Amino acid sequence: MDRTLSSETTHKIGETVLLKGWVNTRRDHGKIVFIDLRDRTGLIQVVMTGDQAGSLRPEDVVYITGLVKARPEKLVNPRLATGAVEIEAQNVTLIEKAAELPFDMGQQVLELQLPTLLDNRTLSLRHPRISDIFLVQAAVLEGFRLAARELGCIEIVVPTISASATEGGAEVFKVNYYGHSAFLTQSPQLYKQMLVPSYERVYTIAHIYRSEPSVTTRHLSESTQLDCEIGYADFTELMDALEFVGSRTVKHVTENCAGILSRFGIAPAWIPPQIPRLKMREAQEIIKQRTGVDHTLEKDLMPEDEKEIWRWAREVHHSDFVTITHYPTQKRAFYTMPDPQNPEYSLSYDLIFRGVELLSGSQRINNYDQLLAAMKSRGLNPDDFVMYLQAFKYGMPPEGGFSFGLERFTMLILELANIREASMFPRDMERVDVRLSALKKPRQRAGV
Amino acid sequence: MDRTLSSETTHKIGETVLLKGWVNTRRDHGKIVFIDLRDRTGLIQVVMTGDQAGSLRPEDVVYITGLVKARPEKLVNPRLATGAVEIEAQNVTLIEKAAELPFDMGQQVLELQLPTLLDNRTLSLRHPRISDIFLVQAAVLEGFRLAARELGCIEIVVPTISASATEGGAEVFKVNYYGHSAFLTQSPQLYKQMLVPSYERVYTIAHIYRSEPSVTTRHLSESTQLDCEIGYADFTELMDALEFVGSRTVKHVTENCAGILSRFGIAPAWIPPQIPRLKMREAQEIIKQRTGVDHTLEKDLMPEDEKEIWRWAREVHHSDFVTITHYPTQKRAFYTMPDPQNPEYSLSYDLIFRGVELLSGSQRINNYDQLLAAMKSRGLNPDDFVMYLQAFKYGMPPEGGFSFGLERFTMLILELANIREASMFPRDMERVDVRLSALKKPRQRAGV
Repeated sequence: MDRTLSSETTHKIGETVLLKGWVNTRRDHGKIVFIDLRDRTGLIQVVMTGDQAGSLRPEDVVYITGLVKARPEKLVNPRLATGAVEIEAQNVTLIEKAAELPFDMGQQVLELQLPTLLDNRTLSLRHPRISDIFLVQAAVLEGFRLAARELGCIEIVVPTISASATEGGAEVFKVNYYGHSAFLTQSPQLYKQMLVPSYERVYTIAHIYRSEPSVTTRHLSESTQLDCEIGYADFTELMDALEFVGSRTVKHVTENCAGILSRFGIAPAWIPPQIPRLKMREAQEIIKQRTGVDHTLEKDLMPEDEKEIWRWAREVHHSDFVTITHYPTQKRAFYTMPDPQNPEYSLSYDLIFRGVELLSGSQRINNYDQLLAAMKSRGLNPDDFVMYLQAFKYGMPPEGGFSFGLERFTMLILELANIREASMFPRDMERVDVRLSALKKPRQRAGV
Repeated sequence: MDRTLSSETTHKIGETVLLKGWVNTRRDHGKIVFIDLRDRTGLIQVVMTGDQAGSLRPEDVVYITGLVKARPEKLVNPRLATGAVEIEAQNVTLIEKAAELPFDMGQQVLELQLPTLLDNRTLSLRHPRISDIFLVQAAVLEGFRLAARELGCIEIVVPTISASATEGGAEVFKVNYYGHSAFLTQSPQLYKQMLVPSYERVYTIAHIYRSEPSVTTRHLSESTQLDCEIGYADFTELMDALEFVGSRTVKHVTENCAGILSRFGIAPAWIPPQIPRLKMREAQEIIKQRTGVDHTLEKDLMPEDEKEIWRWAREVHHSDFVTITHYPTQKRAFYTMPDPQNPEYSLSYDLIFRGVELLSGSQRINNYDQLLAAMKSRGLNPDDFVMYLQAFKYGMPPEGGFSFGLERFTMLILELANIREASMFPRDMERVDVRLSALKKPRQRAGV
């Protein structure tokens, strides 16, 4: 007999079906036992005798043949998609026995500390509330790809092993590369720029690495970055692309994960036809007028400023998005184009979503000599950027782009408290699946 | 004026347009100069005076306004998509000057040694013949995703930093991970299996790393692997999925890159409704009968056997694909399910395409005790697989999957001679963009 998925049972009342899945929960009521069976489409209630149920317990893998029956109206469970039916078990076959669980998987939300959830990651990832997070993440990936492709971007694959620390900074992981020192990249930035002369418009989904020597709720040692880069575009066209990709990705998630967002208590995003745009100094001025707090001399927006300018965007423009431009040149990466009108500020932009930076980018310096000078003024050694500079030596058009972090985006859109919740297998200074402190044999510490 | 792409000019005869792109080639004919301008849609011929052309040379970035004119019939260039028109330049603006090129980019095929192409990678990647390779690669990625999603697979993101060498073997890169030793993964295999209990069906596109201490035409130190894993599937269903994903991806490339395949001289693949399936021993028997060469005692198909069985598949089944199953258990990874009928052979499969293995996989051992025993019999330490084993401890259904290498697939489908040609920025023991031997400062060699 072919397998019937739990979601298909509602159309099969009166039929005998074969279900395959995990025991999600077991409730014994005298002589009968209720099993909620879980498969990839959700839960279905199965009624069986104590004999049939035997010692079944959560996470056991079972195959069950049974009759699909409509439930009496007063017993319909509105919280379950299959709540109008139940299965009367005929035959119950245990396929794989699960060990006793370290915690109750039957709760609506697993009320456990994050380290416990991560110590038992292959188990906690089965919980609907947690597996839902990564359905949203998959929708972010897909929404981004659709948006990037609509802009005409070609997908590129860029390496993660690099001969030099990408953008300077000490927070890089070193790799023993055939006796040489190599590094794990902090960003696909330089490579996507190098591909502009090939395809003009490119996108990539890349792993990035930061050897962050502290444990915060916002940093991962390994994460995923989504990047676009667009040639022959001026600053206005780049902002158009930024806002299109950011809002289109949010829209894709909203449309494809409506049920999950609703269960997480997330309201649909306000996306206006035209996202408001402000220079950083203009935003600070508005904030000063609204709150009386003067941050007009600060070199960046403070977190509370990003919140306040979002409130302004909602009130004045009915928008959960607002684009902030012209951050101080010194606050941005070396390749950021200074504003020719006033080089102290740059042709940079952040797309703020609900009070937090969601996407970030800029127009880039595309002239070879100007780029070389910018590198040197930041103390970077052009010898570490031979291949990157080559792309500019042979004619780089005006171009720019933007990027965002997949885990960060997932965290923001679902309002999660810790970025680790938005990574299936988060890496930080304390953990690589297992806690590093718990590794039995002390690993070699000097070199690797 | 808005930019017109070169491909759009054929519909704008008589109009004045603004073109933006790179000088691809320059031909001086007395007082007039012909410039082939290149943008992301291809080439267009621009006619200008010597004064307008000035010192323009290949890879200069230029903006040109000009009149679109139909060419007289005898001057139509059938080799160019825009060959029926040309642009009479009115205004030529040099945006970025390119340095003198190290080789002629105007050739149909760059007749250069691979090291030269790679030393000048940002330039060689602009050449249409080379950039075409990565358009095919992008189509492979998209074809795979469409096929995986049609199977109901959810996209997952798995880490590349691992606490132990994934499947044993010495060819791993070590990373200094906050003073601990960590490794770059050789495969997303274990993680995709760990996600089966969450989503049943998953797919991922992941970077993998092999510290291959030799330079061959088939190995990269960093490459891209495309993986599916499917729960609640038996061996036959897994083969169905393997053949579906393999042939559907080839079909997607064939349909979306017809022009490129034709320029590379690649014939469309023969994809029959039912791909022939043979056990390895049956294939060896057929080969013996066809060729007289007896390999029936070999533990694996030899490269010439894969070629011969492809010829058989074409002749007998009009198929460029053939699925070979039941490789010796000892030749496959520890998690491969032995055939219960005869445990010396395994429930493994390779999808052979035009005489070479294209995809590979197996049904997996899904019972915890059996898996533990298989690990131990291979000399692997279960302590190195704590999180992986956890997934089996709590109920893993019958499952299996398959994978393929993106660069390898690209190489095979385009019949490239070296896998480095199928990687934008190939990493091997001699090169990370630049040649390691050419790095000015000798890098620290002991440890990293």
